[in-house]
Amino acid sequence: MIDIRVDKTSSEPVYQQISQFFKRMITQGKVAEGWRLPPERTLAKTLGVNRTTILNAYRDLKESGLVEGHVGRGTSVLPLHPATESPGAGVQPLRWTQLLRHQPVIPCEGLIRDLLQLTERSDVIILSMGLPCHDLVPAELMRQALEDVIAGRGADVFSSGPCEGALGFRAALADLMRRRGAGCDPEEILVTSGSQQAIDLIARVLLEPGDYVVVEEPSYFGALNVFRQAQARLLSVPTDAHGMRTDLLEPILLRYRPKFIYTLPTFQNPSGSLLSLERRRQLVEMAHRFRVPVVEDDVYRDLAYDVEPPPPLKGLDEAGFVVYVSSFSKILAPGLRVGWVAAPRPLVRQLVLAKQLADLHTATPSQLVIERLLGSGALARHIGDLRQAYRRRRDLLVQALKTEAPEWVTWTVPGGGLHLWCRLPGLATTALLARAAEEKVSYLPGVPCFVNEPAEQYIRLSFSHCPAEQIPEGVTRLMRAVRRMPRPAKVGAPRCAETRTLV
Amino acid sequence: MIDIRVDKTSSEPVYQQISQFFKRMITQGKVAEGWRLPPERTLAKTLGVNRTTILNAYRDLKESGLVEGHVGRGTSVLPLHPATESPGAGVQPLRWTQLLRHQPVIPCEGLIRDLLQLTERSDVIILSMGLPCHDLVPAELMRQALEDVIAGRGADVFSSGPCEGALGFRAALADLMRRRGAGCDPEEILVTSGSQQAIDLIARVLLEPGDYVVVEEPSYFGALNVFRQAQARLLSVPTDAHGMRTDLLEPILLRYRPKFIYTLPTFQNPSGSLLSLERRRQLVEMAHRFRVPVVEDDVYRDLAYDVEPPPPLKGLDEAGFVVYVSSFSKILAPGLRVGWVAAPRPLVRQLVLAKQLADLHTATPSQLVIERLLGSGALARHIGDLRQAYRRRRDLLVQALKTEAPEWVTWTVPGGGLHLWCRLPGLATTALLARAAEEKVSYLPGVPCFVNEPAEQYIRLSFSHCPAEQIPEGVTRLMRAVRRMPRPAKVGAPRCAETRTLV
Repeated sequence: MIDIRVDKTSSEPVYQQISQFFKRMITQGKVAEGWRLPPERTLAKTLGVNRTTILNAYRDLKESGLVEGHVGRGTSVLPLHPATESPGAGVQPLRWTQLLRHQPVIPCEGLIRDLLQLTERSDVIILSMGLPCHDLVPAELMRQALEDVIAGRGADVFSSGPCEGALGFRAALADLMRRRGAGCDPEEILVTSGSQQAIDLIARVLLEPGDYVVVEEPSYFGALNVFRQAQARLLSVPTDAHGMRTDLLEPILLRYRPKFIYTLPTFQNPSGSLLSLERRRQLVEMAHRFRVPVVEDDVYRDLAYDVEPPPPLKGLDEAGFVVYVSSFSKILAPGLRVGWVAAPRPLVRQLVLAKQLADLHTATPSQLVIERLLGSGALARHIGDLRQAYRRRRDLLVQALKTEAPEWVTWTVPGGGLHLWCRLPGLATTALLARAAEEKVSYLPGVPCFVNEPAEQYIRLSFSHCPAEQIPEGVTRLMRAVRRMPRPAKVGAPRCAETRTLV
Repeated sequence: MIDIRVDKTSSEPVYQQISQFFKRMITQGKVAEGWRLPPERTLAKTLGVNRTTILNAYRDLKESGLVEGHVGRGTSVLPLHPATESPGAGVQPLRWTQLLRHQPVIPCEGLIRDLLQLTERSDVIILSMGLPCHDLVPAELMRQALEDVIAGRGADVFSSGPCEGALGFRAALADLMRRRGAGCDPEEILVTSGSQQAIDLIARVLLEPGDYVVVEEPSYFGALNVFRQAQARLLSVPTDAHGMRTDLLEPILLRYRPKFIYTLPTFQNPSGSLLSLERRRQLVEMAHRFRVPVVEDDVYRDLAYDVEPPPPLKGLDEAGFVVYVSSFSKILAPGLRVGWVAAPRPLVRQLVLAKQLADLHTATPSQLVIERLLGSGALARHIGDLRQAYRRRRDLLVQALKTEAPEWVTWTVPGGGLHLWCRLPGLATTALLARAAEEKVSYLPGVPCFVNEPAEQYIRLSFSHCPAEQIPEGVTRLMRAVRRMPRPAKVGAPRCAETRTLV
């Protein structure tokens, strides 16, 4: 059928030889729109190459816009000139891909989008999403709050507002900051469209191409990708059970002059780790000593199950080095798209100008509903309920893993947050995704969370999104997929930075 | 009191001499936090310089973070080290302004922000905002729609969704596109957080520093600023009563290879002009011939008062050169923050990836409410009402101008949209803003809408935001401010491209 030959001695990487082969087939019209490429597994076997090689070749094809692929549905050829670009009056359609700005390569760029699309499928058990499950989104509470604010403020609720965010809402956020142990003035707050936008605006205002940014490894992939898009160079600090190895930070700060340090000290995404108070102090002290700002991503703080977390870095810093980012997506509802930044005034002023160009301001109804729920105490009560519910889910997940996982699989037990970090030594966890989708379960492969290592052996399991009763079945399905995967016979002992036993 | 001397023969611009003088005073501690700089008018008179020179000097001071100023409240010295940056344990605070990315100069950067803040003042009559007035925002309609979607879909309304936008909503938008005469598939649509985000994402995906972008002059300042921030070079095409002078476009396309042409063909912002069908065909034909994409900003289409506008450029283009941008901010409610892009698939694919990094997705409740109002026909009926109401407001504004304006003031009568473009030959219309704020009325000075000329003689009056009954009083106040302004005795006849008599 297909006559590909690969030359492993060539200087051209094997995956490129494969993708070039298909590119020629497609552009020369040898295969038509809708033609299915061979399944990755089959082709890997046929060619005697690693499955990752095929994955890379197919990713390359996707990025060039010639094929599309979705987990569990295979990869198929796109129309060369999509229907809407078909010539009118003899005009050749534009080749849009040639007009695109030169962009840095963002690894696994389509992954989040694919994972979000998977959430639309009702037959898949979602362990990939760190967002509240439908049954933990307090729809009635928000309906009532909307009703109340509309009754009180009428059309104001749907009108435009200041770039910075609604006045009263910023005051309520300043109050919340005080309760979190990092007081600030309302003028030091910018309301954003989720914490993702907060991170993006910070990058837009601060980062020049070539700037260094220090991140812990693993870290939140959505932030890493923003920094990559800004053409920053990422410097990573290893982590252990207590979060960032602050003892390994100083050599980096001595050698480089990073624009800032990005960290999730509290119930980290993806690892679930909690930075100890001692390390928090060390981190702030080093930030002061080396005069490097810190961007603190603190979206999981309120979701503590076993212990109260230490104060935010911002609360330990009296010299204005810490930029604090948080959101209501995890503790109320992700669909509202509301987060915020708390930062020194000169930075807020610049962030506001960037926000104005980006989207003018954040949706007003979302802001006013949250302002109301903060003021009435209803959000605090809801968070109390959430802690109970998530603790139970975490315990269900851990119990299921204990029962179902092969003995060589290890994991952490996070003391808060929404994620459990799981190690499958020697397993290609990105390739596992397709098999998991066949088994109708999803998870987040570790790769996008890393800067350096491929780290194929990690996965993140989130216990927030699917209904609690699905968690055990989800783990059963996942482990069925795991058992179907090839695994190298000999796997070394885990390295020091990889053993995680959190409480 | 203040001993500034300016040397008009120096190679250093006078405004810089003035701003340098104040910078020294402030950084050397000769004046304290809160100290008020002399009013612009007074200082201009004292120094015998143009008021614009003082405005530029004060703007320079604002941009360096040393002072802050708000229209009508004067300019005052900021703390050198803001309170939150006060040293803790002897740590010197960070100088955030030194950490900022190098940014291209965005003229009048703080203007939109200042104007948005003015809308919070209840004593000012707002003729500066092209957004619906409170009494034209159908709060009850939206309350009911929210109620209905929550009843039908529960927590879905507040949950996360696909980056591209909610599935059903994109289908509804594709329907709307068909009704607007520019049909497309749901897959060719990306839902954005207002049309501002649509423009920003297009710039992020397409523009490299140094790229050329063709714009009509005047144009929407929020788009010009996005292109400037992307470090694009702007090429402007003059306009007349029928919109872009397409006869002047060809030489530009012969000389340059712009990345795209940005245009508002239908009831343009700020000029209100409507591009004729003949020119639309010419524009699309030239886009095809020179292989340049067109970004069509079509947010005012539904607000036609006298005639139905010709079809969108996108409807005249069968080769996929036109990227279509629109929004619900003008026809429903700006606080929802919902707009969209309709574009060929390869571009949508890239825009989705950019959106994902920018803010994941647009607020779900906003999308679902609009989907409902589109489906039930309620939005179409509301737009019918809006046309009536805005036509009346436009007529009120024109009537008031006829009564109140000095005979040397001229204006257009727009056939749709929300803006009236007004020429005050020889008048410094940015300086007029402070005097207008004293008279408690606001408008948009023409300057930010231009690429080249200072165009101090134009202002944009929007008749959408303040209650109808305030419009005559607003014009009375504005003309009081105008009469208080100095005006050069001799003003030349308007140039060809400046006479506008729309119907």
